[in-house]
Amino acid sequence: MKKNSLAFFLLLLLATSIQAQTDEDAFEIRKIYDTALQEGQAYEWLRHLCLKVGPRLSGTAGAAAAVEYGKQMFDTLGFDKVYLQECQVPHWERGEKEIVRIVGSSTVGTQELNGIALGFSGSSGKLGLSAEVIEVKSLDELKALDPAKVKGKIVFYNRPLDPLQINTFAAYGGAVDQRVYGPKEAEKLGAVAAIVRSMTTKQDDVPHSGVTIFEEGQNRIPAVAISTNDADLLSSLVQREKVRVYVRTTCRQLSDKTSYNVVGEIKGSEFPEEIILVGGHLDSWDVNQGAHDDGAGVVQALDVIYNLKKMGYKPKRTLRCVWFMNEENGQAGAKKYAEVSNAIPEKHILAIESDRGGFTPRGFTTEADDKVYKPKLAIVKKWESLLSPFGIEIKAGGGSGADISRLKPQMGLLMGLYPDSQRYFDFHHAPNDNFENVNKRELLLGAAAMTAMVYLVDKYGL
Amino acid sequence: MKKNSLAFFLLLLLATSIQAQTDEDAFEIRKIYDTALQEGQAYEWLRHLCLKVGPRLSGTAGAAAAVEYGKQMFDTLGFDKVYLQECQVPHWERGEKEIVRIVGSSTVGTQELNGIALGFSGSSGKLGLSAEVIEVKSLDELKALDPAKVKGKIVFYNRPLDPLQINTFAAYGGAVDQRVYGPKEAEKLGAVAAIVRSMTTKQDDVPHSGVTIFEEGQNRIPAVAISTNDADLLSSLVQREKVRVYVRTTCRQLSDKTSYNVVGEIKGSEFPEEIILVGGHLDSWDVNQGAHDDGAGVVQALDVIYNLKKMGYKPKRTLRCVWFMNEENGQAGAKKYAEVSNAIPEKHILAIESDRGGFTPRGFTTEADDKVYKPKLAIVKKWESLLSPFGIEIKAGGGSGADISRLKPQMGLLMGLYPDSQRYFDFHHAPNDNFENVNKRELLLGAAAMTAMVYLVDKYGL
Repeated sequence: MKKNSLAFFLLLLLATSIQAQTDEDAFEIRKIYDTALQEGQAYEWLRHLCLKVGPRLSGTAGAAAAVEYGKQMFDTLGFDKVYLQECQVPHWERGEKEIVRIVGSSTVGTQELNGIALGFSGSSGKLGLSAEVIEVKSLDELKALDPAKVKGKIVFYNRPLDPLQINTFAAYGGAVDQRVYGPKEAEKLGAVAAIVRSMTTKQDDVPHSGVTIFEEGQNRIPAVAISTNDADLLSSLVQREKVRVYVRTTCRQLSDKTSYNVVGEIKGSEFPEEIILVGGHLDSWDVNQGAHDDGAGVVQALDVIYNLKKMGYKPKRTLRCVWFMNEENGQAGAKKYAEVSNAIPEKHILAIESDRGGFTPRGFTTEADDKVYKPKLAIVKKWESLLSPFGIEIKAGGGSGADISRLKPQMGLLMGLYPDSQRYFDFHHAPNDNFENVNKRELLLGAAAMTAMVYLVDKYGL
Repeated sequence: MKKNSLAFFLLLLLATSIQAQTDEDAFEIRKIYDTALQEGQAYEWLRHLCLKVGPRLSGTAGAAAAVEYGKQMFDTLGFDKVYLQECQVPHWERGEKEIVRIVGSSTVGTQELNGIALGFSGSSGKLGLSAEVIEVKSLDELKALDPAKVKGKIVFYNRPLDPLQINTFAAYGGAVDQRVYGPKEAEKLGAVAAIVRSMTTKQDDVPHSGVTIFEEGQNRIPAVAISTNDADLLSSLVQREKVRVYVRTTCRQLSDKTSYNVVGEIKGSEFPEEIILVGGHLDSWDVNQGAHDDGAGVVQALDVIYNLKKMGYKPKRTLRCVWFMNEENGQAGAKKYAEVSNAIPEKHILAIESDRGGFTPRGFTTEADDKVYKPKLAIVKKWESLLSPFGIEIKAGGGSGADISRLKPQMGLLMGLYPDSQRYFDFHHAPNDNFENVNKRELLLGAAAMTAMVYLVDKYGL
């Protein structure tokens, strides 16, 4: 054989072997989807979590019940190790149903608004309070005002989510500073309460809660979100007359509670020190079942393990499923997990979080330390053709998830499951984020995509 | 300038001009999306069509009202020409609410099933009928049976949609022969009625109607679909005992009615003989508002015209919007339109139908005559990078739509809007296909994608 022919022959052999490998992977990934769609338990677990456990805000009895449920579920799945990782979580309680009411308007008289107190916001006292409303569209607009005009008033933040963003998470990101920092800035200028337009892309009567942040020792004023319809009404009124609103909230900040991340682990057979994590957060807001946020994420993460077990797959690397506690208001679970893991230090080569709702998956977003991002992205990008038949792409950028991003110093790749985003903010932090609004196939397809990615990374490394 | 340098310079000029063109297109398409998302009327039109007009099965008063509403809406949009195109449509009526009931079971006694008569199916008579049920999984299985075993029985078709298909339309396509041809084949073997498992990917209590076809002069036996939950129940029972079911339907086939396609046209300024069509079908089933099927499609098609008008765009080619009549049971409107157009012959260079629900669009499916398909697909494929920022891909194959596929002899490209398919068969032909289940942003994004495609084809030709 001539030298050239030999080179050609070897090249052909390599090409054939690569093709065979790809065919085998395609076969395995199809098998993963078959298993996930036929055998996956995510929907049934979510049913239980939503309808039997229900709301599970950090520090509440519901959250404790959710941890117990999680531990019991994990114990049935044949992990090598299941444990609870302790963390100290804040304990805020909403108290009685909020009242938000336009009073003494020359146009509408008295009118109830659909309001919901923000997490960490303060109490108005049992009698409530009423004051004149001033509307602003941004924190900057507030800060530019004469403080004398703000003192004693209720500040109303009313900048909508940008409807022109195709990805609704970008729209949310562009508006949520009003909810997170608006009340605290209003208080600094002497406002007695704050009202925020709900952080939703939908025009309706549903109010959306979420966290607001005050500084240590600051007076926590009452702060409520009102529905988008009511925000439009209030804004119209404010433009034509002086409007007074009555707000009554009885929220309480109690002392921190002990709570837990739920963790399950299967030891890798060849590279046990290389960890692949799948996770979501177990806590939810107190006004809903936390179906999309983030019941969907935790059951999908656990279904990854279930699907691989069902297929008899023995991982080479260590697989870890984590149900994080307290993502919504403090991220105490995420902080504790990363603190322990980074101190050892462990080596998470991949972490995937699902926390963008249980809708049809469209792919994965990615992030990593700058030093390793490009080569690692290039590796997973090579697998895109295996996943695109299932509608899955691998996106450059886009972040990962609040519960895993602190693992970045371990130089692994961090991913977020990226579902269709159009409906997510119809339900986010609102009383309608319930089981009935999750579609079984969409949920299972998300678990399937995560299982496929875990399979590839476990097989080939990263 | 040397020859090589000149060639290089010209190439650079060309490259710069292509880049500028692409930038301009990207800018225009972003503007189309901005217009569609902020100004689009599809959702408000759909609200009216669903809540004020309501069900509009061919031949019914509802269908006539829908035509009238369509004509009035078209008249407000500044078309050069709006007209009704006459066609003769069948007129089948459901009659009274169906009864489907297990009777005299030694296991469950008497139990009501969620049943719905199939379009074109016959009447049981006022007293109804009852007979023993035999279950089959396919037409072939039925045909292999001893006819003596079928005679006098009720044939129950119970092959589910394949849950492993990622595209639910493929799952539907693989099962729907049971509904379309099952009752007629059962009757040929002497069955007195037919029951079909509902054509849905969801496990629930909702029955799904749809057309069934009998031969000319054949005895139209009663034929009903039952919900997937009830199909499972019935199947379990049939496996353990002889099961009798009572069926009562009072469907009637009346004489054909005159109805209409609603057509609007804007004359092209440069190539008026080249037609670009956007359309959907106006008729729906009688048991729902036809929100996804196909209210969504017709309002999206009209929104294409509205968006371009709103932007002050003057088309070079003729734009035509068509709301087709009678897609559900006969396609009389589509046949008439194609017959007239093919006879002239006109030249539809592009036709886009939206008839797969108002969910988040993921792209366009395509088809054309074999002689022209590849080059035409290659042209539109070049525009994919302009659309992919909006989550839109151009698929090779996948068909177009029942109302436009007869235009193939005109050698144009035919497209179907291709939305996320996971939820479509939760609602298809069922009593829950109503306005509340359509998401505004998802609907408008579909109209935006169609508008962008029409813009590109109008600008560059095809």
